[in-house]
Amino acid sequence: MAEIAVLGHGVVGSGVLEVLLSHRDSITRRAKEEIDVKYILDLREFPELSYAGLFTKDFECIRSDPDVKIVVECMGGLEPAYTYAKACLTSGKSFVTSNKELVAAKGAELLALAQKNNLNFLFEASVGGGIPIIRPISQCLAANEVSEIAGILNGTTNFILTKMIREHMAFADALSLAQQLGYAERDPSADVEGADACRKICILASLAFGSHVYPEQVHTEGITKITLEDVAYADAWGGVIKLIGEVKMGENGKISIQVAPMFISRESPLCNVDDVFNGIMVRGDATGDVMFYGKGAGKLPTASAVVADVIDCVKHFKARKYLFWEDAKPDYVEPIGAVPGDCFVRVRGEGSSDEAFAAAETVFPGAVRIIRREEEPGEAGFSVTEVTADKLDEGFARLSSMGVRVLGRIIISDY
Amino acid sequence: MAEIAVLGHGVVGSGVLEVLLSHRDSITRRAKEEIDVKYILDLREFPELSYAGLFTKDFECIRSDPDVKIVVECMGGLEPAYTYAKACLTSGKSFVTSNKELVAAKGAELLALAQKNNLNFLFEASVGGGIPIIRPISQCLAANEVSEIAGILNGTTNFILTKMIREHMAFADALSLAQQLGYAERDPSADVEGADACRKICILASLAFGSHVYPEQVHTEGITKITLEDVAYADAWGGVIKLIGEVKMGENGKISIQVAPMFISRESPLCNVDDVFNGIMVRGDATGDVMFYGKGAGKLPTASAVVADVIDCVKHFKARKYLFWEDAKPDYVEPIGAVPGDCFVRVRGEGSSDEAFAAAETVFPGAVRIIRREEEPGEAGFSVTEVTADKLDEGFARLSSMGVRVLGRIIISDY
Repeated sequence: MAEIAVLGHGVVGSGVLEVLLSHRDSITRRAKEEIDVKYILDLREFPELSYAGLFTKDFECIRSDPDVKIVVECMGGLEPAYTYAKACLTSGKSFVTSNKELVAAKGAELLALAQKNNLNFLFEASVGGGIPIIRPISQCLAANEVSEIAGILNGTTNFILTKMIREHMAFADALSLAQQLGYAERDPSADVEGADACRKICILASLAFGSHVYPEQVHTEGITKITLEDVAYADAWGGVIKLIGEVKMGENGKISIQVAPMFISRESPLCNVDDVFNGIMVRGDATGDVMFYGKGAGKLPTASAVVADVIDCVKHFKARKYLFWEDAKPDYVEPIGAVPGDCFVRVRGEGSSDEAFAAAETVFPGAVRIIRREEEPGEAGFSVTEVTADKLDEGFARLSSMGVRVLGRIIISDY
Repeated sequence: MAEIAVLGHGVVGSGVLEVLLSHRDSITRRAKEEIDVKYILDLREFPELSYAGLFTKDFECIRSDPDVKIVVECMGGLEPAYTYAKACLTSGKSFVTSNKELVAAKGAELLALAQKNNLNFLFEASVGGGIPIIRPISQCLAANEVSEIAGILNGTTNFILTKMIREHMAFADALSLAQQLGYAERDPSADVEGADACRKICILASLAFGSHVYPEQVHTEGITKITLEDVAYADAWGGVIKLIGEVKMGENGKISIQVAPMFISRESPLCNVDDVFNGIMVRGDATGDVMFYGKGAGKLPTASAVVADVIDCVKHFKARKYLFWEDAKPDYVEPIGAVPGDCFVRVRGEGSSDEAFAAAETVFPGAVRIIRREEEPGEAGFSVTEVTADKLDEGFARLSSMGVRVLGRIIISDY
């Protein structure tokens, strides 16, 4: 019998108990051992639960119990999760977490600690909820060099964008609907400003390329500035707007990494990833493009990923899983302003739309005009190719001096 | 150092050598041991290759060499692959294969043999080429009951259908283009008649539900009867035609399984799986729908999946991978004629289209008419819901007696 402790009995933590109890037989068969929860750490009490007797408020009684071999953390937030993780990994306990903030901020350190103590530190549920992604990247794609990862990593923003695209709902209305449905928090900033997606692309980048990338190193834009006009332009261009987290390995051994709204072509498999679903595309030299799709959050999907990690821990008490990356390297992240790419730009001049576009063409030779339905007087949309953000900014300053104001710009992806 | 042998130096076998040689460092790092090819079995000779000295025509020298711990089979076809697999698994060698015919026909037997001898029998590359699917189903989804799997499992037919849908190419022309491009064999029957997809859904069904399903037990239809008229009707209905392999677990513990062309809605993530790509959707009680997408065939994707299995074998010399199913159970596969579902039907009467549809409505009350562009005189298309194949056949006989001929029928999926 393998005894475990669960830290936190919120949405994910209670889901872990639910999955363990409802799938007891198949889990025992797969783990080849019964998995038994000995403690649940939570400051609240749940006297109505059948397993109310397992609750404790004292982490130390878990840390000091030699029978507990695996600790599952579903509290979220950096502290006290980080302190608990270190304490467990130095007390002979493997650590399984769904906490992306923890992994994005402290992954390299905790992986090193786990390795040193011959324990496992697993976090499948921290990215993509129920979608298997950490394990496929680290194992299944072992005989393959990953060159690029791009994903729709945040279900809340994807739900909002889907409502804007399909039902022409304004951003504020779609956000408020998401809040009513429980898809967005009362303070939605971590989702809509891109911080959540940023943590996830950091974890994927660290795993795929072997060096830790910290959220502070990543250029991150959310979707708060996206308007229905942008959505209409994406449609006229031949696609939709999605919030994408992406990382690419360059030939110089540096990565370019960012989170930003992007135009995605209708031909792309990422285009039909709608509502609260996530989709993660991994580009490898041997496999080509592989995509993983599913619900990126939610109680049971996330809990089932946590429990799968626990099963893996039980099966590998002696053999450590190969999952490792080094700490951050200096000068490893390319300054994003210097990376060329395609971009959509929306401007408004004082004259006609044609005049506004003519001005744009003098500044960006080769710009291709995109005309949306109900284009307003003086407004023009166009795409430019292979331009850096720095060059764009220079061009925008010139446009401004010509009386043409830039209303917005959105990256055009090549997925 | 881990020594292996590769059986067959065709497309996949030579790809395995290419991947092993070109990724030597990263593979060694991941396997924690160097992987060295000691023999390559092939009846042909390749004197121009840098590793020409490894070739042998004698399987016995591989079988009897105690240094060879893993044998990789990339020959395809049931024999001699099956004989070699048994010989290896009884001679202390783990066996890795990309051969779906072998796994679909002999999986249960070879898994039992591997278990008995404490060896591994791995076959990630047999389904979905470079897409990780066998491992995610068996591991990542361990804490989750799978209820259903549906996939676009054959790249050749998907390429042909994509050409029919996008470029209105007739079936015969699209097939001949696929042959020119090397996507279809000179004798394309295993692909276009559905046998290849059938083997793959058998493997997935066996793995997900624990009992072997043999190809002979599966109702299998190919795409040879699909016309551009059907494609136009699918478009008018709101989707596309895809060749789907699907298996569902019923509440009575029996499975319904089939391979057939189906209407897939434009909202489905399977809809954008185009050209030679495969997409496999796994529906679980905790995870919801998870989809895996990528190139389902090809030299390097398939070879990289084979090599990932080899790495896994090397890492698990002592701990066996949990991958197992039992032999077939009697009465386990539901007769497909008794399983209700939605269906599209295309008919032609001797009078007008309206008259043809009126006849259809008397036979199938509640039928919903679908009108395609350029509908021909007397032709009518319609959908019926929740009807069994047996009931359809009865209805078709009645229609025929009313002078209305059935031109075709296609399942409407709910994915």
